[in-house]
Amino acid sequence: MSELARQTGLSRTGVGSRLTALRGMGLVEDLGAGPSSGGRPPALVRFARNGGAVVAVDMGATSVDVAVTNLAAEPVVHLAQDIDIREGPKSVLNTTLDLVDQVLEAYPHAPGQLDGTGSKAAGSKGAGLKGIAVGIPGPVEFATGRPVSPPIMPGWDQYPVRELFEERYGCPTFVDNDVNLMAIGELWAGAAASVQDVLWVKLGTGIGCGIISQGAVFRGISGCAGDIGHIELGGDKTVCRCGNLGCLEAVAGGEALARRAEGLALSGESPSLARMFDERGTLRAEDLGVAAEEGDVAAVELVRGAGRAVGAVLASLVNFYNPEMIVIGGGVSRLGVRLLASIRESVYRRSLPLSTRDLVLTVSTLDGLAGVIGGGAMVLGELYGLSPAGA
Amino acid sequence: MSELARQTGLSRTGVGSRLTALRGMGLVEDLGAGPSSGGRPPALVRFARNGGAVVAVDMGATSVDVAVTNLAAEPVVHLAQDIDIREGPKSVLNTTLDLVDQVLEAYPHAPGQLDGTGSKAAGSKGAGLKGIAVGIPGPVEFATGRPVSPPIMPGWDQYPVRELFEERYGCPTFVDNDVNLMAIGELWAGAAASVQDVLWVKLGTGIGCGIISQGAVFRGISGCAGDIGHIELGGDKTVCRCGNLGCLEAVAGGEALARRAEGLALSGESPSLARMFDERGTLRAEDLGVAAEEGDVAAVELVRGAGRAVGAVLASLVNFYNPEMIVIGGGVSRLGVRLLASIRESVYRRSLPLSTRDLVLTVSTLDGLAGVIGGGAMVLGELYGLSPAGA
Repeated sequence: MSELARQTGLSRTGVGSRLTALRGMGLVEDLGAGPSSGGRPPALVRFARNGGAVVAVDMGATSVDVAVTNLAAEPVVHLAQDIDIREGPKSVLNTTLDLVDQVLEAYPHAPGQLDGTGSKAAGSKGAGLKGIAVGIPGPVEFATGRPVSPPIMPGWDQYPVRELFEERYGCPTFVDNDVNLMAIGELWAGAAASVQDVLWVKLGTGIGCGIISQGAVFRGISGCAGDIGHIELGGDKTVCRCGNLGCLEAVAGGEALARRAEGLALSGESPSLARMFDERGTLRAEDLGVAAEEGDVAAVELVRGAGRAVGAVLASLVNFYNPEMIVIGGGVSRLGVRLLASIRESVYRRSLPLSTRDLVLTVSTLDGLAGVIGGGAMVLGELYGLSPAGA
Repeated sequence: MSELARQTGLSRTGVGSRLTALRGMGLVEDLGAGPSSGGRPPALVRFARNGGAVVAVDMGATSVDVAVTNLAAEPVVHLAQDIDIREGPKSVLNTTLDLVDQVLEAYPHAPGQLDGTGSKAAGSKGAGLKGIAVGIPGPVEFATGRPVSPPIMPGWDQYPVRELFEERYGCPTFVDNDVNLMAIGELWAGAAASVQDVLWVKLGTGIGCGIISQGAVFRGISGCAGDIGHIELGGDKTVCRCGNLGCLEAVAGGEALARRAEGLALSGESPSLARMFDERGTLRAEDLGVAAEEGDVAAVELVRGAGRAVGAVLASLVNFYNPEMIVIGGGVSRLGVRLLASIRESVYRRSLPLSTRDLVLTVSTLDGLAGVIGGGAMVLGELYGLSPAGA
């Protein structure tokens, strides 16, 4: 309890009365006395992990992951499906809601209370669905739960995402940028546990960055902090879909890499990629990783170039922000060890020595689940004031 | 008092007992009842601005400013002198201590208690010298008050700056990076009053950035957050004194601009600069501003190029950090309206529209005094828990 008081900044009395309330709702369980460090042995409590459930939606540009997590933000049921975010909110959200219904149906705990049809859901006797988190690949006004001018999402601007979920499932819903959820997930259960200042860099179809400042998500004045995909790589003249030249995303984003891989296949520069392209008629960024593993020279050079571009931008951010840790995640982050090596090379070459002295630059340890774990954790944080460090 | 409770997060009782203690020390004065907004009229209190003094030292690469401020962080006595930070701590600090003695001598309030010779100083009966702030142009470990591997300051690494001042003047001393003090000053009394997320960009001999995150200085894990002078301008091949190519400081820092101005004078490309160089045998960055005002084409182009380089880096930071305000200060910021116009041009061209929607990009309103005002404010904040918003 002293530890909870320290972490929350509440008095011991404040912690005690909140614990009593949470116990009454069936949300915490007592684990008895812990090991003493000298004085009275501490009383151990933890969230009753099966005291309820959270739905976490992690929407990317080309796929959506939906999970039900328990109250430890552990995904219990998880489904994923390909989408195209450009098809607009109606179509994409219909697919998403179907997935939510399916995971709720499949959730083994008290299923009748979780089927998501209004009155039966949400919080009766402390069981049931406690809340929903939705991550979307664009800027979000967190207070209203609406996308704000998302650049690659036609039709989504100001769409009432929160209202849609709250009306259908009758429980509190929080909408945030996808990388913010991923950063929270890494803080909760991944490489960044107990780290205060973290950059979580998603290398996917697009490129974005979740910023953790002193243990909390930093969103900026318009909710678009971390939008690093369109930072300019000086000297590069590649045209980006945003209309500018030399954006990071135009060089190292998954979509750009897939198109460049196809170019290498068609020109014959890459035998490995040409073989894969002949088989399927299209290529994805992941194929580059396979070709690079096979030692295909053109593929290796493309992966290295992407890594150097990411590293150049991160070097600037390291000088500016002096973070304790950078975590790399997203589909493109799985292109293999050469990518990480090239990123590190650029960061160490161009950052000030002092700013990299204590820096840890690593890949996500959550194997693609950072977003849904972060979604679960965010709901617990928003509803019960739990911070990742308190997990 | 309700307002103080809201701003500090203390209970009304907590605010009341602290006010009583501060009254006892002569540090606050009561102003009677304020205008009522419906209920009981609020009791107005303010810091007794003449209840004591703070010494603020703002050390740059080529000059040092020393001021005594009152308890509203207003500079009352102010002296400045040229220095060369590269001469090392002993020489530079001797000059600085002489200036401190001089400003304390000249301070009109209770001078006998402020002459800085040990027992007579510091806090007897609540009057006297309350604390000292020292800003230095390099990274500082704030907790120990020591410079950490400052790149342009040979001999300063780990030098016990705080101990030196505390032993000599017998009062608490806080050492910080100079731009952090400037950012605090702008928050306290300048363009950034009541703004939460601010970047304060110093364009001086070197280039640095103070980061205000949610109303407080953000220093990063090693104390070097905001060190933007060595961010790479892609495509530029100018050699920087740090050994890398294309650093922002090598293109837009005051030292670099002065050398380039001399080049324009010697080559005859700039008649205005040639005339000034003939008169004095050397040029400073400020001379460029004069030449540009005269309409000298080469000088105008050099100023514009510097502005575009600064703007390119700031555009990246705007995408990453989505700040509410950027304040430009430092000697080079006085090169005239063309500089600011070029900075703005680059920022608006390369930042995402959403991230500049609410952005204010302006120059410091504190006329070179941001550092000493910020020093006074920092001491008040550290000693009495006053935040800039509470001023």
